[in-house]
Amino acid sequence: MESKSEWGSGVWAHLTTVRQRSPLVQCITNFVSMDLVANTLLSAGASPAMVHSVVEIPDFTPHVHALCVNVGTLTPDWLPSMKAAAELASKLGKPWVLDPAAVSCSRFRLKACLELVELKPTVIKGNGSEIIALSSASTGQTKGADSSHESTDAIEAAKSLALSSGAVVAVSGAVDIVTDGKRVIGVRNGTKMMQKITATGCSLAGLIAAFLAIDSLQPLEATVSAMSVFGIAGELGEAMSKGPASLRMHLIDSLYGLDETTVLNRVNITRLG
Amino acid sequence: MESKSEWGSGVWAHLTTVRQRSPLVQCITNFVSMDLVANTLLSAGASPAMVHSVVEIPDFTPHVHALCVNVGTLTPDWLPSMKAAAELASKLGKPWVLDPAAVSCSRFRLKACLELVELKPTVIKGNGSEIIALSSASTGQTKGADSSHESTDAIEAAKSLALSSGAVVAVSGAVDIVTDGKRVIGVRNGTKMMQKITATGCSLAGLIAAFLAIDSLQPLEATVSAMSVFGIAGELGEAMSKGPASLRMHLIDSLYGLDETTVLNRVNITRLG
Amino acid sequence: MESKSEWGSGVWAHLTTVRQRSPLVQCITNFVSMDLVANTLLSAGASPAMVHSVVEIPDFTPHVHALCVNVGTLTPDWLPSMKAAAELASKLGKPWVLDPAAVSCSRFRLKACLELVELKPTVIKGNGSEIIALSSASTGQTKGADSSHESTDAIEAAKSLALSSGAVVAVSGAVDIVTDGKRVIGVRNGTKMMQKITATGCSLAGLIAAFLAIDSLQPLEATVSAMSVFGIAGELGEAMSKGPASLRMHLIDSLYGLDETTVLNRVNITRLG
Repeated sequence: MESKSEWGSGVWAHLTTVRQRSPLVQCITNFVSMDLVANTLLSAGASPAMVHSVVEIPDFTPHVHALCVNVGTLTPDWLPSMKAAAELASKLGKPWVLDPAAVSCSRFRLKACLELVELKPTVIKGNGSEIIALSSASTGQTKGADSSHESTDAIEAAKSLALSSGAVVAVSGAVDIVTDGKRVIGVRNGTKMMQKITATGCSLAGLIAAFLAIDSLQPLEATVSAMSVFGIAGELGEAMSKGPASLRMHLIDSLYGLDETTVLNRVNITRLG
Repeated sequence: MESKSEWGSGVWAHLTTVRQRSPLVQCITNFVSMDLVANTLLSAGASPAMVHSVVEIPDFTPHVHALCVNVGTLTPDWLPSMKAAAELASKLGKPWVLDPAAVSCSRFRLKACLELVELKPTVIKGNGSEIIALSSASTGQTKGADSSHESTDAIEAAKSLALSSGAVVAVSGAVDIVTDGKRVIGVRNGTKMMQKITATGCSLAGLIAAFLAIDSLQPLEATVSAMSVFGIAGELGEAMSKGPASLRMHLIDSLYGLDETTVLNRVNITRLG
Repeated sequence: MESKSEWGSGVWAHLTTVRQRSPLVQCITNFVSMDLVANTLLSAGASPAMVHSVVEIPDFTPHVHALCVNVGTLTPDWLPSMKAAAELASKLGKPWVLDPAAVSCSRFRLKACLELVELKPTVIKGNGSEIIALSSASTGQTKGADSSHESTDAIEAAKSLALSSGAVVAVSGAVDIVTDGKRVIGVRNGTKMMQKITATGCSLAGLIAAFLAIDSLQPLEATVSAMSVFGIAGELGEAMSKGPASLRMHLIDSLYGLDETTVLNRVNITRLG
């Protein structure tokens, strides 16, 4: 089992590699989050591309290093693009992340997410309620895109979804949970106030895609690293903040400036099962 | 007639209730403002949901506590969603806000707004030019989404629109005006520089929806409170700012941290008629 | 040939006029950049209007003072609006800017940009890779919206595109290049970190449109001024920043507060050919 220092050096190695290689990450995400997702990727050293037109997928997706699909403002005309990009990514062996944002807000969205899961995402990232809903594949009632379940409530659902889908499943929360269906890792970085900023979850999904791009053979480790890095940036940001909007700014600045000592000191990852 | 201290305690009570109940507010708003509207609602303690697909309305809108519709980047394919959500909200007795942003920029948009007014919004919020244009239902020439009329010029138009539509009408400006057609209330909170930040008007509309969600029987009072709270956050923000972008940040931080003493000291509401 | 001080006074005169006249600038831009484009225009003293529906163009575009078209998140349903607005602007003698963002990411986008070039933009603004790709009209491989060519590599391509299209061509980079096919001007304002903020390029395109609005007979000079002003705001911003997100804030604040002495001291414009 990995020690804290092993996790720490792995996280730092992942971040360093993202900065060196600047992977091109295609994001088909929602309207609310495009700005913050792009800025998160840029500040982490990756290269974002918000290309979502179905007519551009065949030309563009073969050039990207990873893909992120987020259904936060899904409409029927966007779904074919998401599917085409996901299908092409899977076919070409490129890692891709599914963020089933507010999956249970409608039958249409749940069905769309189930169809996307069929296209073999490398990682599925959601909050507790989203992962539980997707796992049980039944429409529940959630409060918008926020979670009304703790991430730890979702461990069994996450493991079950991981096993049935073949994806690594990441559950964001007070403790972030990452599982491949066998191993369960807990990431205790981040701060509560990050939930008061819209699109932090979407940005984390984009960041996971960037980390997968540079370590696609170890999706669980790459996902854990991305979640820890984003959480650490949030912790540093909160220490300088007076509220959610200054946290948003300091989080991005901190992600940009993150150094090895800080990462090694702050990484808080443990194996839970 | 209400004294300043009565208004102040009412404003504080409204804000406290929003924070406690965290109402779910569906926003069908324009592309420019989605980020700031969501962050405004989160910082006020509400729960935003930017759900706009027409296929999701029947499943989702019954669960929300209020709705905000803003036509700032209206296209013909978005109008059916807005109408479906508005109609369902009205039918289910849920309060909803119409923001007729730049209503007079085209005949299409004016017609769309008139159709939305028919669906019985609880509150119509615009700047002076928008309210005058909507009230007179004739296409004028406005400068984009900005106002070329003072809010006070629009008092008679606002009263007339309130009486014909049954909505409370709110006019943002140097003095914000709120009327139900009989009473006319003036809110003198806020700062001029807020007009130099895009989407502050849209965010105010979202905030009004959140306040209506927790006091739907008193839409005039809830609207006055939301306008005062947003204005006070702007005043506090401006004191810390060097320009519009830092004001935007400090406004959201201030809204998040607003305390009772500050609210009671700064509320500036008077009955004008 | 113009001296540095002549350029400086020209830049300041342009900015002053934008602030005085507050030109109405219609922006049909991508989803990622709408917020920052609008805030850039507001902070410069212009009046942004993010109106993109094809049904609104005939009513609205005749009232604007300039137009900016950016293809960053182009889909087939947006292209008719862009063409209709561009055609109307050209017909009515209004200046307009084309930003061929990520032009070479697909054959669809390249073809769309070539069609837009046919509609006679006043200015075409891109990074080195975009201008080279558009000029050679062949699909290359670019890294998303970022540039993998230095702006100076693109001088010949820019001149050639300017001559064939009749547009002034602006190439953003470490040195910004502006050419009408004969004169070549270099602008050495700005900082490298601005590339770590999404939508700065789009915002610059919007700002160029605002400057063209108040000096449409001298598009080369107006473009040079806009690029210098935006770069100076970035330089001032960076001096106060700890990373890309605080730079974004301070850039907008600085643009809002820019004074004559600072402009005259910092303008760094030279004729290169």
